[in-house]
Amino acid sequence: MSPEVTIQDVARLAGVSTSTVSNLLNGRNERMRPETLERVQRAITQLGYSPNRAARHLKTGHVEMIGVIVPSVANPFYGAFASHVERAALQAGYQILLGNSERDPEREQRYAEELWSHGIRGLIFGSSLLALTHLATFVEHGLSIVAFDRQAQPVDDLPIDSVTVDNVRAARLATEHLLNLGHRRIGFVTGPVRTVNRQSRLEGYRKTLADFGVAPDPDLIWEKALEKGFGDTEGVELGRSGARELLSRANRPTALVAINDMYAFGAYAGARDLGLRVPHDISIVGIDDGVLAEVVDPPLTTVRQPLAEMTLAAVDLVIGRIEGRDDGPPRHLTMQPELIVRQSTQEPSWRST
Amino acid sequence: MSPEVTIQDVARLAGVSTSTVSNLLNGRNERMRPETLERVQRAITQLGYSPNRAARHLKTGHVEMIGVIVPSVANPFYGAFASHVERAALQAGYQILLGNSERDPEREQRYAEELWSHGIRGLIFGSSLLALTHLATFVEHGLSIVAFDRQAQPVDDLPIDSVTVDNVRAARLATEHLLNLGHRRIGFVTGPVRTVNRQSRLEGYRKTLADFGVAPDPDLIWEKALEKGFGDTEGVELGRSGARELLSRANRPTALVAINDMYAFGAYAGARDLGLRVPHDISIVGIDDGVLAEVVDPPLTTVRQPLAEMTLAAVDLVIGRIEGRDDGPPRHLTMQPELIVRQSTQEPSWRST
Repeated sequence: MSPEVTIQDVARLAGVSTSTVSNLLNGRNERMRPETLERVQRAITQLGYSPNRAARHLKTGHVEMIGVIVPSVANPFYGAFASHVERAALQAGYQILLGNSERDPEREQRYAEELWSHGIRGLIFGSSLLALTHLATFVEHGLSIVAFDRQAQPVDDLPIDSVTVDNVRAARLATEHLLNLGHRRIGFVTGPVRTVNRQSRLEGYRKTLADFGVAPDPDLIWEKALEKGFGDTEGVELGRSGARELLSRANRPTALVAINDMYAFGAYAGARDLGLRVPHDISIVGIDDGVLAEVVDPPLTTVRQPLAEMTLAAVDLVIGRIEGRDDGPPRHLTMQPELIVRQSTQEPSWRST
Repeated sequence: MSPEVTIQDVARLAGVSTSTVSNLLNGRNERMRPETLERVQRAITQLGYSPNRAARHLKTGHVEMIGVIVPSVANPFYGAFASHVERAALQAGYQILLGNSERDPEREQRYAEELWSHGIRGLIFGSSLLALTHLATFVEHGLSIVAFDRQAQPVDDLPIDSVTVDNVRAARLATEHLLNLGHRRIGFVTGPVRTVNRQSRLEGYRKTLADFGVAPDPDLIWEKALEKGFGDTEGVELGRSGARELLSRANRPTALVAINDMYAFGAYAGARDLGLRVPHDISIVGIDDGVLAEVVDPPLTTVRQPLAEMTLAAVDLVIGRIEGRDDGPPRHLTMQPELIVRQSTQEPSWRST
């Protein structure tokens, strides 16, 4: 593949216009005759034409890369996260390579090793595990890490940047909204609380209840504990089971805070399983505000993470580190969440005593 | 990082049990005292302990990797796809690295280059573009590609394996189901039809109508044409716009086939925007059967892709190629879709004339 081959060379050899070649390269070949398609294809192969390689060589001689580790690609929120990161990275001239860890520290370490051995020196780390020990050696050797949605912890011993939403506040907004509507028995549905962001959300929920003088009831917190590594494929199912269990109790809650939107969608189904209507019989609030929140029926009241802003900041930070423009102490950016009131919440129509 | 450091060394230096170290490595440190956490963390850092590196060196001296390119990580179906591929790959001792292409051939080529230069020789390719010309040079140099959900095409000139669901049949099952319920004005809602799988689905819809003697009405096909590169972030929004437009027409359809579940969820919202109820006023069928299909209200009638089976086959194929066990001509596996009837479809209550 020689970089000096141009699109004109391909067009000339195939006996077509350059726009025909360009159309083919961009997938716009619905109306192209099979013979033409084949001729262009052969010319490309024969000449070893590679548009990016050509463009790139002109620029820097190498491609800049950022590694991105997502906790669970099965959760559309992290899909959106990865898309946003990629968009911001591409605009800055960087490509990303994705690893999916299911929050398993061993897998995360293996990905870090792979990316490191590939020459990648910047990593946006979307998992939010309590300890980051498993990444220590890489950081010490020069890997720049931006932790996403993980508030820096007192035990953190590593120079790692972070960009996070204020998760305590996110849960506070959700809980306060329900309290202000008159709810007092408010449940909390979550998967394993083994990440910083989930811990913060649970803390925000607890503190807000306390601030309103509502006595905590451990029976209202449904947490699914899993063995090891926990993806979000189960998020919807867990939300459904959690809601079903909490709502089957004698003194059932009138409202639920779900750890994220996927759990909230599951909780909708869990309520429906019991013949309960949202929001008439049970109010439900999510956290994330992904693309589906507005579309489900009823549209979900949820707390929005400013995803575009957060991912831009993370990409900016990691590139600053990679390129050596920023060698200061770790930076920790905290963004503010926003309550989005839709139609899954209302005053309690059923009051416990 | 010396591979001979063991978990026992870490425990000894930190003055804790090996199970404490193991707990920390696996994120089970909620109840660990900060001092202990810090001591173990320091010991790990000091010794450069790396459990995987140790385990791996014992085995092969290198890690086996498969590249996976997904069309759009923002579509939970491809998130689930990536999770399934990863699970199957890990079981076979392989790790995966993910690239997200938004179906942009330039990006796909760049990913192929990156993965190739990283020494990766097997690629599962989830985009389904009409031409694969942009990957030709890599295949010629020895990259093994398994195309996922892309039926081999007559113009394909490359020795590429494929694993796909029968997409013509998938759309046939959806359309037949509606015809059998008595629907005759059946709309079709899709994003840009520039992929093999979408083309096949549209073909299946058209053929099935013809088989039932229903004259095709181009006004009932809503296709959003986009410029270049098309992800699925917009899938929900497009489904919503498409449904809204089709259902606003004087002689509106009584049923819709959506190109995938995300479009179907959007179509639910589009119907709701107009005050129409699913399925009473409009029946809606999706394709995919992702994790949300059962959870939305009403639960979605859809056509299931046998994802686990397909991804297992794809991983199996690509590893067979990489390891040289399989050097025969291209293999093309076609799996059968299955209609899952839920509650988003019923007999038309409103008949056009």
